[in-house]
Amino acid sequence: MRHARIRAAGEDIDVVVETPDRLRTADGRVLNANDVQWLPPRHGTIFALGLNYADHAAELSFKAPEEPLIFIKAPSSLIGHKQNSVRPANVEYMHYEAELVAVIGRAARHVGRDQAMQYIRGYTVCNDYAVRDYLENYYRPNLRVKSRDTLTPLGPWVMDAEEVPDPHNLAVRTRVNGGLRQEGNTRDMIFTIPVLVEYLSRFLTLQPGDMISTGTPKGLSDVRPGDVVEVEVEGVGVLENRIISES
Amino acid sequence: MRHARIRAAGEDIDVVVETPDRLRTADGRVLNANDVQWLPPRHGTIFALGLNYADHAAELSFKAPEEPLIFIKAPSSLIGHKQNSVRPANVEYMHYEAELVAVIGRAARHVGRDQAMQYIRGYTVCNDYAVRDYLENYYRPNLRVKSRDTLTPLGPWVMDAEEVPDPHNLAVRTRVNGGLRQEGNTRDMIFTIPVLVEYLSRFLTLQPGDMISTGTPKGLSDVRPGDVVEVEVEGVGVLENRIISES
Repeated sequence: MRHARIRAAGEDIDVVVETPDRLRTADGRVLNANDVQWLPPRHGTIFALGLNYADHAAELSFKAPEEPLIFIKAPSSLIGHKQNSVRPANVEYMHYEAELVAVIGRAARHVGRDQAMQYIRGYTVCNDYAVRDYLENYYRPNLRVKSRDTLTPLGPWVMDAEEVPDPHNLAVRTRVNGGLRQEGNTRDMIFTIPVLVEYLSRFLTLQPGDMISTGTPKGLSDVRPGDVVEVEVEGVGVLENRIISES
Repeated sequence: MRHARIRAAGEDIDVVVETPDRLRTADGRVLNANDVQWLPPRHGTIFALGLNYADHAAELSFKAPEEPLIFIKAPSSLIGHKQNSVRPANVEYMHYEAELVAVIGRAARHVGRDQAMQYIRGYTVCNDYAVRDYLENYYRPNLRVKSRDTLTPLGPWVMDAEEVPDPHNLAVRTRVNGGLRQEGNTRDMIFTIPVLVEYLSRFLTLQPGDMISTGTPKGLSDVRPGDVVEVEVEGVGVLENRIISES
């Protein structure tokens, strides 16, 4: 099943997505997706990976990290499917980043990689935009790069884990105005989902609803106001949004 | 007034702190602080500053930053007053960091420094422990340094802003087992609270309940299992906790 959160008639509602157009509420109402606003899925802390694909690290002229490079996203940066992202004025590089996101299902502390997948309840898609002008250093991008309002589209939904048999063999793609710009595969992650759960849970408790956005493959390019950007993780979802200007 | 959150008889309760021992619930019950467990105050996203006092930057042999160096704390790392912090096994440097925390009162976006203090509703105290063994780089300390379970004592309470006439002239102290180890003053911050609100609100929306932990002055030293650590911000509060070992 696909679980989403939407706003309709001023109310925030949890729905099951029967088809991308047809949404069902817990009390059995059916809504048309064209009549609602998509919100980001319910979430706890969002951990995001930097440089978790070797080809992407190389594209930015960075060494691949020896330890997961993880930062926390400001929740205020999140938007839902089909919402607008604001490109700041006077910057040169606003890059999409298509990413598979693993969603934690139960509290995880000191969980080894062999057990880790039992703690994942589903998957979603993130477009973890970066305004690269502000990056001074490869260690944990600063908040101006990665936590601006509207620059983290998330969703459209969380797909149950049992419907994603192998999360480490999924195509990851970005299309801009319909043209393919980025294509990779989650098999090329440096630190896999079980390794990330093991790593994080060694020193902190992953809570139900926490998310791990697993990084992006090679293929970044600049997007401009008016562009429609779709990030896709095969078998999980396609997350679309539009770039608008700050003014 | 001082606002705290405590657990008593399995229930999480908001209280007003009449004296450090005497707590009053919204429905008028009076509780003795010795009979309750202190929780971290209610909070949204917690932003924390690195190297925001020049003397502290010098002590770590770093240049003072030219732009605020801000990272986000994992909420799972928080504990309340009088709780235990776990020192990891096999590390050399676990440092307390006494910090004044500003609490946002209403949504702030594009707020200039001249208006910024109107968005602050109160203050609390943070002990932003760092396990410095894991620091590879001064840019945004990694999660193993700063977001471990139990390594962010916060509280005991939020003091209303009107009772803190000048937050930029407060002594900041740490005592370990009663002995003074760290002493500074918030007047020596590099980036003041209004400057931080202006900086952050230029690219993200500060939400009510979000907190900005403003960094620590010079005077770090290692703490060991059995130590009782008190961090104090003059006129705001004294936050006490005890170090225990991982085993």
